[in-house]
Amino acid sequence: MQKEDSCFDFVENGGVSSPAGFLSSGAFAGLKQSGKADMALLYSEKECSFAGTFTSNLFCAAPVRYCREVCASMKTVRAMVINSGVANACTGLEGYNNAKATAAEAAKVLKLDDPRKVLVASTGHIGDQLPMEKIVKGIRDGAEHLSPEGGADAARAIMTTDTRPKELAVSFTVGGKKVTVGGMCKGAGMISPKMVIAPHATMICCVTTDASIDNDLLSRLLEKSVEGSFNRITVDSDMSTNDTVVVFANGASGVRILPGTEEERSFAEALDMVTAHLARAIVYDGEGVTKFITVAVTGAKNDADAEKCARAIANSPLCKTAWFGGDPNWGRILAAAGYSGASFRPENFSLFFDGVPVIRGGLPAGTQESEMAEVMKQREFTVKVDLGAGESSATVWTGDFTYDYVKINADYRT
Amino acid sequence: MQKEDSCFDFVENGGVSSPAGFLSSGAFAGLKQSGKADMALLYSEKECSFAGTFTSNLFCAAPVRYCREVCASMKTVRAMVINSGVANACTGLEGYNNAKATAAEAAKVLKLDDPRKVLVASTGHIGDQLPMEKIVKGIRDGAEHLSPEGGADAARAIMTTDTRPKELAVSFTVGGKKVTVGGMCKGAGMISPKMVIAPHATMICCVTTDASIDNDLLSRLLEKSVEGSFNRITVDSDMSTNDTVVVFANGASGVRILPGTEEERSFAEALDMVTAHLARAIVYDGEGVTKFITVAVTGAKNDADAEKCARAIANSPLCKTAWFGGDPNWGRILAAAGYSGASFRPENFSLFFDGVPVIRGGLPAGTQESEMAEVMKQREFTVKVDLGAGESSATVWTGDFTYDYVKINADYRT
Repeated sequence: MQKEDSCFDFVENGGVSSPAGFLSSGAFAGLKQSGKADMALLYSEKECSFAGTFTSNLFCAAPVRYCREVCASMKTVRAMVINSGVANACTGLEGYNNAKATAAEAAKVLKLDDPRKVLVASTGHIGDQLPMEKIVKGIRDGAEHLSPEGGADAARAIMTTDTRPKELAVSFTVGGKKVTVGGMCKGAGMISPKMVIAPHATMICCVTTDASIDNDLLSRLLEKSVEGSFNRITVDSDMSTNDTVVVFANGASGVRILPGTEEERSFAEALDMVTAHLARAIVYDGEGVTKFITVAVTGAKNDADAEKCARAIANSPLCKTAWFGGDPNWGRILAAAGYSGASFRPENFSLFFDGVPVIRGGLPAGTQESEMAEVMKQREFTVKVDLGAGESSATVWTGDFTYDYVKINADYRT
Repeated sequence: MQKEDSCFDFVENGGVSSPAGFLSSGAFAGLKQSGKADMALLYSEKECSFAGTFTSNLFCAAPVRYCREVCASMKTVRAMVINSGVANACTGLEGYNNAKATAAEAAKVLKLDDPRKVLVASTGHIGDQLPMEKIVKGIRDGAEHLSPEGGADAARAIMTTDTRPKELAVSFTVGGKKVTVGGMCKGAGMISPKMVIAPHATMICCVTTDASIDNDLLSRLLEKSVEGSFNRITVDSDMSTNDTVVVFANGASGVRILPGTEEERSFAEALDMVTAHLARAIVYDGEGVTKFITVAVTGAKNDADAEKCARAIANSPLCKTAWFGGDPNWGRILAAAGYSGASFRPENFSLFFDGVPVIRGGLPAGTQESEMAEVMKQREFTVKVDLGAGESSATVWTGDFTYDYVKINADYRT
């Protein structure tokens, strides 16, 4: 068989129901004061293997608890219901029962043989109970409008402070058969996911594929993919109670993905393309964000140090406001590295803004500040740090900190 | 002897040179574009025992490195020079030599027998070398104007983004003799000090006393006092390269403070009053801050957990913007506690805004949101969290996150 792993096509207007056999819709339950669509349904015509990663926040939301149970007990699923407007977090037993009832209602409407074949996710204000009459109405509305072209509506329905829908689908060919991986996500604030697999961000992402792949392998590939995508982003360093990424695989392409094969590598690559695109899209659309900054740390003593240093810089309010101002105030970056807890010697520290040297050997590299400021004017740039202490590296994608972030979050419910 | 330990007097317009035998001044070196005073001198007529705590940032500034050496090698000191405008951080050997030369110049002008009898501290932009001609001019100007009434000028001269000087002096009486503890500090941004004693926040604080007390005891009392004051505050979670707290004791009161005595307890209490007042003043004057929030965590499994939880809430951009907006969005507080790393069971979690119950047993306590909003309207309130997991507690003082914080830090140098 020909090696095809660099041959990926982007599906035009692709999204969560681009893979064969998936239908989706956006629906109106009346959860949002704005009256906009607030529920998304995803449905697969065939049984799906599946995998999920969920927030590691101790206050995980009711739908997260419910989904973990499904992940632990079910072999296949068929559908997912996502609502925006109400997070169903910190809602106790009643909230858990409402999550379960949401799944059961969807299973009934979709004529599934087991209520646990429906996953649920919620995003919105923490602490309110789901208004179940509205939820039931939304499920029925969504079920009536399920369509292979429903992806865009679904992606819009899950938005909260997001300003635009986030979706993508890519395809590749195996032995003449086309495999598609699609996905959608939402998220703009309370974004600093740290998700862990199965036994355990409010970003929510739903990935679909028509490949056939068993739960264990799917789970392994998802974990790795999430680690390199959603777990790499931060908008405000606040980890949500509801972060959820699930992947559904219904096998409708007729292509089976087995471990250690060329197909696995192609599938993993396609999955990574989708998750990385969607994760980056969250930062681009982060609350008030005007700039996309890649913080790339190399030369760390170990992985934990690399991660600590990258996150300290990516989350520093002083760095983030300087980036907003286009101010090449590198002292703030050094200060953040210096308090990150990473172990290094200041005299071995280097810093670049894109290709422009800023610090070498712990001291200014002699570059004109105007040259650094040019880099900062861009919509997107990289802050490269080398700690000179080892071989480990880590990358985190972050945004700047702006007036609009304050406005959005000081006025969230008013 | 009568027990006098609850009898403290606030010195009117008291500050760093209120204790007997201290002189201070503000001076003009020309380091600030505004043309405002930018150097402070402190001088003691008598030899001083002393102690210092300094930033734990790996990129500690040159004056911090110099002061640590003085702490390790000298028994007594006589003076301190503080400049604002230039941090002398990330300035390499040249920066170190400039810090040393600053001390030497002051020693010469003040006719001291050893250049190391002068401590130095700097605050301002990171990365620039000290303009030594201006520094020399500033030292001479400062020396000419030394006065027991110079405290207010000194406190103004060390300001950067501070909007007001911060100073205090308290006194108590021992056997008919008055002992005074005075101090000044600066700091508004890059405030999340974690200072460690002698071998090792840009807040800078200078405390003086006319008590007689040896270096070891002074060091122990300072460490404890800083842990309960400056190490309890955060404005923006960014730990500075320059944080410095020093205390000078010249014995001019004729009162000797010995370990285990009533006098020690009185002195420690006076020291704590001064450091707590000054630390809180930094948060009140924090960049853009409009509200003062005390985050008090109790019921933690251990001290580390209590600290982690309090800091996560105190540094959460979502909590801080909600406080700015007067929004009792308690979900954000729960989310921060949940990702803090502290170990607890959500169902044992309680939350109060001042005395108003918000969450009990992990669930809403049934309080009307309007009642919570009333608490948030105040200039100052307490967020009380009980984790229900043990006996440890921690308190952190923080501010809200506002448009002005963004403005100040996006435009810092423009």
